[in-house]
Amino acid sequence: MAEQQQHHSIIKTLRHPDLLAQAEALRPALHRQPVSPVALVDGRGQVIGQPADLARREFGPGEEVILDFGTHCVGRLSLRAVAVGSPPDAPAHLHFTFGEIIDEVVESLADYDGWLSTSWFQQQDLYLDVLPAEIALPRRYCCRYVKIRVVATSRKYRLRLESPCLTTETSADGREVATPAIADPLLRQIDAVSVLTLKNCMQEVFEDGPKRDRRLWLGDLRLQARVNYATFANQALVRRCLMLFAGVTREDGMVAANVFIQPEVIADDTYLFDYSLFFVATLADYVAATDDEETLQALWPTAWRQVELALARLDSRGIVQDSDSWWSFIDWHEQLNKQAASQGVLIYALERAHTLAGRIAPARQAELAATLARLRAATLAHLWDEAQGFFTSGAARQVSSASQVWLLLAEVGDAAFRRRLLTQLRERPPAIGMRTPYMVHHYVEALLQHGERQAAVAEIKGYWGEMVARGADTFWELFDPANPDYSPYGSRLINSYCHAWSCTPAWLIRTFQL
Amino acid sequence: MAEQQQHHSIIKTLRHPDLLAQAEALRPALHRQPVSPVALVDGRGQVIGQPADLARREFGPGEEVILDFGTHCVGRLSLRAVAVGSPPDAPAHLHFTFGEIIDEVVESLADYDGWLSTSWFQQQDLYLDVLPAEIALPRRYCCRYVKIRVVATSRKYRLRLESPCLTTETSADGREVATPAIADPLLRQIDAVSVLTLKNCMQEVFEDGPKRDRRLWLGDLRLQARVNYATFANQALVRRCLMLFAGVTREDGMVAANVFIQPEVIADDTYLFDYSLFFVATLADYVAATDDEETLQALWPTAWRQVELALARLDSRGIVQDSDSWWSFIDWHEQLNKQAASQGVLIYALERAHTLAGRIAPARQAELAATLARLRAATLAHLWDEAQGFFTSGAARQVSSASQVWLLLAEVGDAAFRRRLLTQLRERPPAIGMRTPYMVHHYVEALLQHGERQAAVAEIKGYWGEMVARGADTFWELFDPANPDYSPYGSRLINSYCHAWSCTPAWLIRTFQL
Repeated sequence: MAEQQQHHSIIKTLRHPDLLAQAEALRPALHRQPVSPVALVDGRGQVIGQPADLARREFGPGEEVILDFGTHCVGRLSLRAVAVGSPPDAPAHLHFTFGEIIDEVVESLADYDGWLSTSWFQQQDLYLDVLPAEIALPRRYCCRYVKIRVVATSRKYRLRLESPCLTTETSADGREVATPAIADPLLRQIDAVSVLTLKNCMQEVFEDGPKRDRRLWLGDLRLQARVNYATFANQALVRRCLMLFAGVTREDGMVAANVFIQPEVIADDTYLFDYSLFFVATLADYVAATDDEETLQALWPTAWRQVELALARLDSRGIVQDSDSWWSFIDWHEQLNKQAASQGVLIYALERAHTLAGRIAPARQAELAATLARLRAATLAHLWDEAQGFFTSGAARQVSSASQVWLLLAEVGDAAFRRRLLTQLRERPPAIGMRTPYMVHHYVEALLQHGERQAAVAEIKGYWGEMVARGADTFWELFDPANPDYSPYGSRLINSYCHAWSCTPAWLIRTFQL
Repeated sequence: MAEQQQHHSIIKTLRHPDLLAQAEALRPALHRQPVSPVALVDGRGQVIGQPADLARREFGPGEEVILDFGTHCVGRLSLRAVAVGSPPDAPAHLHFTFGEIIDEVVESLADYDGWLSTSWFQQQDLYLDVLPAEIALPRRYCCRYVKIRVVATSRKYRLRLESPCLTTETSADGREVATPAIADPLLRQIDAVSVLTLKNCMQEVFEDGPKRDRRLWLGDLRLQARVNYATFANQALVRRCLMLFAGVTREDGMVAANVFIQPEVIADDTYLFDYSLFFVATLADYVAATDDEETLQALWPTAWRQVELALARLDSRGIVQDSDSWWSFIDWHEQLNKQAASQGVLIYALERAHTLAGRIAPARQAELAATLARLRAATLAHLWDEAQGFFTSGAARQVSSASQVWLLLAEVGDAAFRRRLLTQLRERPPAIGMRTPYMVHHYVEALLQHGERQAAVAEIKGYWGEMVARGADTFWELFDPANPDYSPYGSRLINSYCHAWSCTPAWLIRTFQL
């Protein structure tokens, strides 16, 4: 995710050194693995040569090659450049372009006019003063494809490029992955792509996307952590990430939507209603997966503070107050009103707080149960539109998929009511639909929560399976089958093609044994 | 100098490990000095701000600044980049352009279409993943001006650029420079610019130009060494450079026109008649300056071999055989025929060999004296054109300034003859004139050798003084007052503006006490 609208000149934050020290102690080791290209490819990704052919080519100015590393990788590139001909009498100038998808290394980036920074385009110019040169590029890149263009040599020599190698990095230990028996071949394939997606996002924190934003976001963390429990089981990394969020909060105790970890841990100045509540949900999932009482003790005050802050946003009716600002995320959708879905997230999170309170703060349980009942009743009373058969959101009483999905996950209304709503949602999908794998995940989860296994499998196959059919090595941040060029940022080239919030099928498939 | 035409697929060379080991033992330490900018300037180099203003500016995408370091520097750039605003949520992308002259950082390099490599343009892109960042650029640059362009940040932050510093590098020890009393203020200024030019070319070897080619050429070395004796007196560096040339020769013993020292010492595959003879002249100057018998012993065989190889090029008349290939350098001039000037260089070098033989190989002296007499007579008999009053060169009997200058330095003809020729040369300059400071130097040396002090001073002031008037901090590789855009490479932007062969006024002024 990339935040769009929140700009705050000064937000005071509180640092909690004990939590930050625990987070630091949990910094994971990175596992490194050298990967060689599997082919030389053309601008459509079609194989035009074998890796061994590379060392036989001699590159003059303007000549280029595209290496295909076979699948999505996160790592550091090294290679050797050797002069051929007369002694190299001028520096060699090389330009590297990295692509998660082939289009990134082929299409012109100069035409980009979006609102995200062009600095996300993965490029590097290198000038080699001495040849032969052992090249080790200075940054971590995220790619399947690497285009190397020899911009300049001199008239007296050409360049050979030898032994390109990506040394991949991840904190996921592949030896520990559970590999369940999945009967359906497409689901098996989707599961594998999900696992690789998670693996490549697992670095010193759970990153949202290793290309972009390379950052720990709470909305992504919650989903990654769940997939992690079902796969790599790196529980310490989840603990570390929760400590990081709790370690730097806003002055009033609110956790940020994301944190930066370099050069030191700081909270971003983006605060989102739904994301802060996901701190509670992520902690509840963690405790359920680990029984780690010590961490619960350390983080319950932070979790409880999110509940208090969220409840303060309720109006007198018991409905979350809406706003024109970018106050809650829910989905990438410019027209989407966030009120009803945020009401759903609140109830969903309060349910998890209620469970946690049972272990650590029994006195809060009755209070939470009462609040839950009041909020569910208020939601039905004020947001439900019987004539339309949908929940509405905001002053304009907007009907969206997101509102229905989150109020389903929040279990508002009885089981029969919710099943009717699910049917209605499938048969008459609202005009304001779902834009991201993140939102589609919650829809599928709602289907499974209400026993709709077939529909859930169809949705997973239709959506994530379609990405696989289109060649995805890892799952994409954004995918709208009806509009493959969709990007909220101004160009699909700046979209992330390995994105944490898209890796959930492995959890869905494994948890619900699909 | 940059070679243009020699391409050899395989030239066998001989390595002389003892000489190379001596050269390696003489590798100089580099003196480093931090230099801060003196001003912020506009695209014409006019001051628009003070260095302290820099830290008060905040740069957004597309914004740039030009730093003026006050004079020509060779060194490594460091600075600090600090984010201002929200936490930096995207990498910062900076572009650096370095210019010895202001035009290099202002004019578009994309339009360049010359035959030298674009890799000589001094540029660097940097991507900063973590801010604040202590930046240390990876290469040595050559500049007075540095343009820093902030290509991209994000919408949430801007950049402050703090503490730019060039850590200059040279093997010249400024504390050892002799500073003679020079009465004439313009000559004093020219001397100072010459000394800085030499200083900035003195690195691990005497480089021809620290921007381009950054390499040890024999034609440049001979002149640098002379200026060095009159200034920094770093005799060990001259010795090292002579050892390098003698350390790797062509199979037949010819020294290369230039050598590379990284990653190991190799001879370039360019061999030039005049440059190989300058090995003899440079050794003779070195011995005269140092009385270093040991080095003479070690290098005399190499020097003598150059004499033998050059004499083998004589035709039956005793005239150097001409060729259409790029066999001798003399000057950058496409129309220039090199025969007569090369004949002059040969005689000039044989005179120095004769002197050296007096110390180390007395048996050779008589042989050399006889050869010198034969060559001078042959030159007068076959190249002198009495009707025109000039020496001619080549089958087309071309009249050029270079031919006259080199045959004057070779002292062909008696003193009265040579004075008439000098007068003729000044009053009726040939259409094929002089293009480089390198050639103009030899003309001025010829004037001084024949007692024409006033004319020599006028020439120095008119030529090097005009560079000073046009703002030169160091002397340029190429300067044609009638055609300021002159470049043999396709663009004056790729010319070197600190060039060894242009630093000779300090030697002329000091040696002849002008």
